Amino acid sequence: MEKDKPIGVFDSGIGGLTVVREIMRNIPNERIIYFGDTARLPYGNKSKETIIRFSRQIVHFLQTQDVKALVIACNTASALALEEMQKEVDIPIIGVVKPGAKVACKTTKNNRIGVIATKGTIASGLYTDFIHQIKPQAEVIGKACPLFVPLVEEGWRKDPVTREVAARYLEELKDKDIDTLILGCTHYPLLRSMIGELMGEKVTLVNPAYETALQLHELLNEYEIASDSVPEGENPYEFFVSDAAESFRDFANAILPIDIDRAKKINIEEY
Amino acid sequence: MEKDKPIGVFDSGIGGLTVVREIMRNIPNERIIYFGDTARLPYGNKSKETIIRFSRQIVHFLQTQDVKALVIACNTASALALEEMQKEVDIPIIGVVKPGAKVACKTTKNNRIGVIATKGTIASGLYTDFIHQIKPQAEVIGKACPLFVPLVEEGWRKDPVTREVAARYLEELKDKDIDTLILGCTHYPLLRSMIGELMGEKVTLVNPAYETALQLHELLNEYEIASDSVPEGENPYEFFVSDAAESFRDFANAILPIDIDRAKKINIEEY
Repeated sequence: MEKDKPIGVFDSGIGGLTVVREIMRNIPNERIIYFGDTARLPYGNKSKETIIRFSRQIVHFLQTQDVKALVIACNTASALALEEMQKEVDIPIIGVVKPGAKVACKTTKNNRIGVIATKGTIASGLYTDFIHQIKPQAEVIGKACPLFVPLVEEGWRKDPVTREVAARYLEELKDKDIDTLILGCTHYPLLRSMIGELMGEKVTLVNPAYETALQLHELLNEYEIASDSVPEGENPYEFFVSDAAESFRDFANAILPIDIDRAKKINIEEY
Repeated sequence: MEKDKPIGVFDSGIGGLTVVREIMRNIPNERIIYFGDTARLPYGNKSKETIIRFSRQIVHFLQTQDVKALVIACNTASALALEEMQKEVDIPIIGVVKPGAKVACKTTKNNRIGVIATKGTIASGLYTDFIHQIKPQAEVIGKACPLFVPLVEEGWRKDPVTREVAARYLEELKDKDIDTLILGCTHYPLLRSMIGELMGEKVTLVNPAYETALQLHELLNEYEIASDSVPEGENPYEFFVSDAAESFRDFANAILPIDIDRAKKINIEEY
């Protein structure tokens, strides 16, 4: 049955697990196949052409797993490759950028919205485009923060150096009187409290992962392919990576509400 | 003629151009074909299996360019993939780790040598192995510095944040009474003056790129394939990348003694 098939979710690496977490919490009936492209991460500074090629291989792989819908749980790939992938596949596919833009438009009172993300996402201008489709009068201020991902991966989430880097990156946003800030990269929610302190109480932080899970649910209902019941069998969630499955599993077990036995390593370039 | 064929040089991205520069300066008769794997950089935190697979594709590509010898101008790939590549190809091939180890052994007076590099290079233990082959009595202290590459690529080479990060990383090396420090990643020479100031005058910094060029020359002579004269034709140096050729060219023109017209973008996964 179509309804019993899994959702395919992918990211450049581990960050997309924050989206998986929200799907598990909010649509517990759904099975998930996750792919993290750990051999080729990060995506943030790479070109549109390359991100489309990588996304195409991953979508091909997930289709071999017979998924009924796809979630691009990576802001860069959502910004650069979603439109192309929507042309190429005949199952529903969503990214994290549009849901993030939507909730930011709902949140802002003064129509001044900040976006922090990778270079690729900011340069694409796609958050601005989606926000303007909903609220043409909104002013959007984007800022690339390329050191956030390596600092998080170094384990320096609470470090004074990270605070200094964050203060530097966020300084120009603080002058712009924004009341809403989109955390436009899946790693950034892991710096949420530091970013919140630096921006002050008047700025609401938006994490697109939660809204993406809700929009996915709406989409499944719209196509009449939402699962009716908690999935049977031992493996409702499966995880695949392109490199170093061991460290991926450790991270996954730290942030997901379930323990995963293993992540399978595949050669993504063959797809 | 075998002697007239080019040298193939490769790296995960732009860092290997510091090796190209030394080859141009020290063996000006040789033609060079360079490949930078900018679509899949960085290599520093990836597994041995993945680095070998990537290196194999690049070696295949360079062999289609009819090279007479190969230089792995990336410390991580030298540490993790050189031995395997030497088994697989029948032309001379060298990395940067062994030459770096050799010059460090010549330099040290007190037999206490530090190595700073990526996680992959440090974890491989290969600098230590090569140093011990030459000087079994030497003590080698390794330290991974994963934030140096993103900081250099952010353009913060002289920044107080970078100085604070460097001070943190180098602190434990300062207590170990080393007199020689190998800059074991091709980006690190770009932080040379800051590292030199932090380590103090008594510590000699070793950049493996220069010694690699000299050992390449010896190897070409040994195989009797060194070029006899300055290369003819318009294109003695050719540059290929797997992503974003434009920014590569800007960086190359900033550090090489020649201006390059263009870097050609290829799909490395097809090799």
